Amino acid sequence: MGHFQTATAVSARREVPGGHEYEAVVDPQWTVGGKPHGGYLLAILGRAAIVSGGADHPHLTAVSGSFLRSPSPGPAAVHVETLRAGRTMTHARARLTQDGRPCVEALITLGTLTEDDPWWSDAEPAALPDEQDCFLTPPEAPGAGFPVALMEVVEQRLDPAGLAFALGTPSRAGVTAGWQRLADGSDWDPLSLLVALDPVPPVSYDLGLPGWAPTVQFSAYVRRLPAPGPLRVRMRALDVTGGLMDEVAHAWDGKGRLVAQATQLAAVRVPPTG
Amino acid sequence: MGHFQTATAVSARREVPGGHEYEAVVDPQWTVGGKPHGGYLLAILGRAAIVSGGADHPHLTAVSGSFLRSPSPGPAAVHVETLRAGRTMTHARARLTQDGRPCVEALITLGTLTEDDPWWSDAEPAALPDEQDCFLTPPEAPGAGFPVALMEVVEQRLDPAGLAFALGTPSRAGVTAGWQRLADGSDWDPLSLLVALDPVPPVSYDLGLPGWAPTVQFSAYVRRLPAPGPLRVRMRALDVTGGLMDEVAHAWDGKGRLVAQATQLAAVRVPPTG
Repeated sequence: MGHFQTATAVSARREVPGGHEYEAVVDPQWTVGGKPHGGYLLAILGRAAIVSGGADHPHLTAVSGSFLRSPSPGPAAVHVETLRAGRTMTHARARLTQDGRPCVEALITLGTLTEDDPWWSDAEPAALPDEQDCFLTPPEAPGAGFPVALMEVVEQRLDPAGLAFALGTPSRAGVTAGWQRLADGSDWDPLSLLVALDPVPPVSYDLGLPGWAPTVQFSAYVRRLPAPGPLRVRMRALDVTGGLMDEVAHAWDGKGRLVAQATQLAAVRVPPTG
Repeated sequence: MGHFQTATAVSARREVPGGHEYEAVVDPQWTVGGKPHGGYLLAILGRAAIVSGGADHPHLTAVSGSFLRSPSPGPAAVHVETLRAGRTMTHARARLTQDGRPCVEALITLGTLTEDDPWWSDAEPAALPDEQDCFLTPPEAPGAGFPVALMEVVEQRLDPAGLAFALGTPSRAGVTAGWQRLADGSDWDPLSLLVALDPVPPVSYDLGLPGWAPTVQFSAYVRRLPAPGPLRVRMRALDVTGGLMDEVAHAWDGKGRLVAQATQLAAVRVPPTG
């Protein structure tokens, strides 16, 4: 249990009006406080889109998801509609439902990624202490108030610079960063990168706002096939207004190249002012 | 002709399976090289989503769009499905079709924006020369190779620092920035901000890649109602690989507050290497 490939598998393809429908099982291991991780759910949708229409374009290159309601671990259905199959990319939309209710709706672009170096880049990898000098995030983080089962399948070591919140003195810089590996030793791929791009804890902890920050909307681009080795992931917030926070994440592979980027809007609870 | 409200109007609501369908007219004025501007098309979809399901949540707060094929100026249909109407926000999906073929598919989140200051912000406005010292972008830009009718309805003044490409010496910094006003004098609103977030020319000009850079995928968040006055907009690329460029845009209002942000993936033609 817990292996990413298995946890995101889809089966039993069925033709339905406007596309294909698949069965999936939302895995209790890929959860935060008992709720399925957003990047993990999008990876299930991405897997279904590839099975449905990825014959010519085998890699997820872009995904945007709206999070409508959190599904529970257990059986779910995934509906995929191909919007356009072009020469260099395929566009699809996908929906995860549980008990007939839509939980996640996504737009997915498939293409063909390589390990090639960029033609041009201004994406310097995040400066981090060595992996062994960073803080291994436990599944039962002190002060989190809930178990993060995800931390048993993702081995995350956070830069201590962004962890002052754990001592009650958040830096309020709005940045968290760290190293990530899949705990079973498998390499990162375009689908598992979606998990890496939404790390725990949210940046709001660093702003002195502890607690669950559910994703409202999440968009990611995968730029190349990652080289083996740990990822560096940095997440930064820019603005918290009206109970919503943006978080922008970048991930670099073992060769220090940008492999993926994401932007999300998450709900946060801010203390009343005045 | 050309007024933003009119150019994004939808009419003749009709109940269809799973939602509402509207008529729209894609306006030839909001085009780049004869092709409708991506942010403008998403604004039509946003307008339809608000008319369909925005009774409680009148403002577009998030949108993600997949650009399947460019519609021509002229009549189009917009289909809207409400995915979830919640307490604080409404999620919808919307599709623009022309002659029965899907052109743009989008996920839209509606909410209620205010002019409130942020609870927390790290979004310093882009440093720009005074508006009158920036370069007014003409509809027939020298070297562009095509007319940009959009520049007759959006008054854009670009920071000369990002314009060295026009002299044949692109800076390759991957940044463009400037001031934007609606030419008819009306104030920016959450829908017209979507136009501002995809400025012309694309950052690729600054990388020495002239020519059309069609948007593949675009995601934007609107964070607050903009104060009157010109916007500052900065757009930055991070990586160009495999014919795809990311562009990240931020917009600040007349009070210097972040009002909106966007990320897009655009197709570019790079010279062969070796």
